[in-house]
Amino acid sequence: MNKQAFVSSVLGEFSQTPATEIASAFAPTNIALCKYWGKRDVELNLPVTPSLSLTLPEKGTTTALTVIDKAQDEIVLNGETLANDTPFSRRIVDFLDLFRKASLHFHIDTRNNMPSSAGLASSASGFAALVDALNSLFGWHLEDRQLSLLARLGSGSACRSFWQGFVEWHRGEQADGLDSYAEPISTIWPELRLGVLILDDRVKPIGSRKAMLRCQKTSCYYPAWPDKVDRDLKTLKQAIQSKDFESLAETSENNALAMHALMFTAMPPISYWTPATQEVMQKVWWLRQEGLPVYFTQDAGPNIKLLFEEKHTAALKEHFPQLDVVVPFLQREVDR
Amino acid sequence: MNKQAFVSSVLGEFSQTPATEIASAFAPTNIALCKYWGKRDVELNLPVTPSLSLTLPEKGTTTALTVIDKAQDEIVLNGETLANDTPFSRRIVDFLDLFRKASLHFHIDTRNNMPSSAGLASSASGFAALVDALNSLFGWHLEDRQLSLLARLGSGSACRSFWQGFVEWHRGEQADGLDSYAEPISTIWPELRLGVLILDDRVKPIGSRKAMLRCQKTSCYYPAWPDKVDRDLKTLKQAIQSKDFESLAETSENNALAMHALMFTAMPPISYWTPATQEVMQKVWWLRQEGLPVYFTQDAGPNIKLLFEEKHTAALKEHFPQLDVVVPFLQREVDR
Repeated sequence: MNKQAFVSSVLGEFSQTPATEIASAFAPTNIALCKYWGKRDVELNLPVTPSLSLTLPEKGTTTALTVIDKAQDEIVLNGETLANDTPFSRRIVDFLDLFRKASLHFHIDTRNNMPSSAGLASSASGFAALVDALNSLFGWHLEDRQLSLLARLGSGSACRSFWQGFVEWHRGEQADGLDSYAEPISTIWPELRLGVLILDDRVKPIGSRKAMLRCQKTSCYYPAWPDKVDRDLKTLKQAIQSKDFESLAETSENNALAMHALMFTAMPPISYWTPATQEVMQKVWWLRQEGLPVYFTQDAGPNIKLLFEEKHTAALKEHFPQLDVVVPFLQREVDR
Repeated sequence: MNKQAFVSSVLGEFSQTPATEIASAFAPTNIALCKYWGKRDVELNLPVTPSLSLTLPEKGTTTALTVIDKAQDEIVLNGETLANDTPFSRRIVDFLDLFRKASLHFHIDTRNNMPSSAGLASSASGFAALVDALNSLFGWHLEDRQLSLLARLGSGSACRSFWQGFVEWHRGEQADGLDSYAEPISTIWPELRLGVLILDDRVKPIGSRKAMLRCQKTSCYYPAWPDKVDRDLKTLKQAIQSKDFESLAETSENNALAMHALMFTAMPPISYWTPATQEVMQKVWWLRQEGLPVYFTQDAGPNIKLLFEEKHTAALKEHFPQLDVVVPFLQREVDR
């Protein structure tokens, strides 16, 4: 099935006429505690495994779409107008083409409040915000599940960015991909903290899409990855239910390391680790030995996200002065 | 089977009376291109998999044994007298006890010309030199295979340190361990170079014996390791036969990374990587992208060994001024 056919399956008959001239949306980014690494369908972004994430409520992307009377789109990323032939622009334009008549063009103003392309999942929040803005602009009134399915088409992890807290992306079994969407897990965990350490915001050496395909094809450990994910997902869901911090954080760290192990063993090898990354990891392991319960997770970029509990915030700020502490379960989200 | 019974199986009736008052031996260290990582019998040091190494002809250990008229052994390591209760001393004494009457004691003078306990396999050359010295001292006139079997009992990788060039340690199938010894591969490869980068000679955080057992027990990827080794061993032996440098070096690097991946995914995680290690790896990958065929291998320590061909020596000395270039196939070995 191609993308266009998938969109029709999700939306049925859908309006391609704007209901309003301008629409905007914010979507938060999410950090996978059990990683998405591998596609069973490249065209439809169908994953080899399920995955589980934690949303960072205030970090993400705001995207505004304005209908313009021009022959092509105008794309502004973080205040800078992009040429239409950059990979970023082409990805956005191709995605928009799935939903509009050829004559319709937009001014797209998209802003991340986290660095782009540095493993902080800006493509997750980016495509979620874009889908949300399209939903408003065309007046589709879609349900969460439909938004999730459409965002997945732009970037796999984007399907998890429509909710606060813990979110599970179901692998799905169908070839048409209609059962591969995300859903929130209802548990609220106000004491949980995620600390972001921006170690290096340079653009990463290889995109995660290319990296995961190379791992699938060449890593000697990839065949063991799906079972690993199944076990970790089960452990994580139990840990969430019982609010067992050690189990949640230890499993998350081990899952992230298992993903990076797939990259190191790919041929040629892939590494998102820098000397600075390595230094932080060593420090985390050392702090843990010293009795401070802190763990990390890392995505396809050099930055590290620490997992810890509220009561250890001061100690961690002391060891990592540049730590940006995120409260995943904000009070207003609890009341939502 | 215990160690004592194993020694009897290997040696049969053997003299425990010194044939001479003093004996000494040098044994070279070896660097595994296909790693030994996991024991199927901890007592007898029987490996889960076969392995394959390259000997560094001039780096190793010289050990002299002198019969002394004292109540206990005297152990001198690199010129420094050790207390008898250090882990190193106890390991040597326990090993010697397998071969002597209780009343016999030695002055043991052992010197490494590479840093101890830094992943440069000083225990490999150490136990090989010790077995060789015992063989002379007691006048056993053992065959290579017997020396290899006995050295294995002291340190698994020591069984590979009795030959120059490429050496294969057979896994063996028997429970008694008598078929798990090393043998040389006859190919001579004069153009091959191995460059040692000593990045950090501090004692490693966790011994390799403990590290490999933890990997066996806890790494999600350990079940995939034996098949990985079988494939790599086959590829390496073909590469040696056809002198295919790229295949040899690429497989060696990937095998080393696969071993370190087992460590990162162990619980708790184990890392022999330091920021400096990581920096060298990145540089090697970058040089390769720039067209310089250089690969690395790394053991249970932070140091890196580069694999390259003679013709690129000058270029590599320029990029790594501290590189200690080893010529594995010395002319006199070729003529041996």
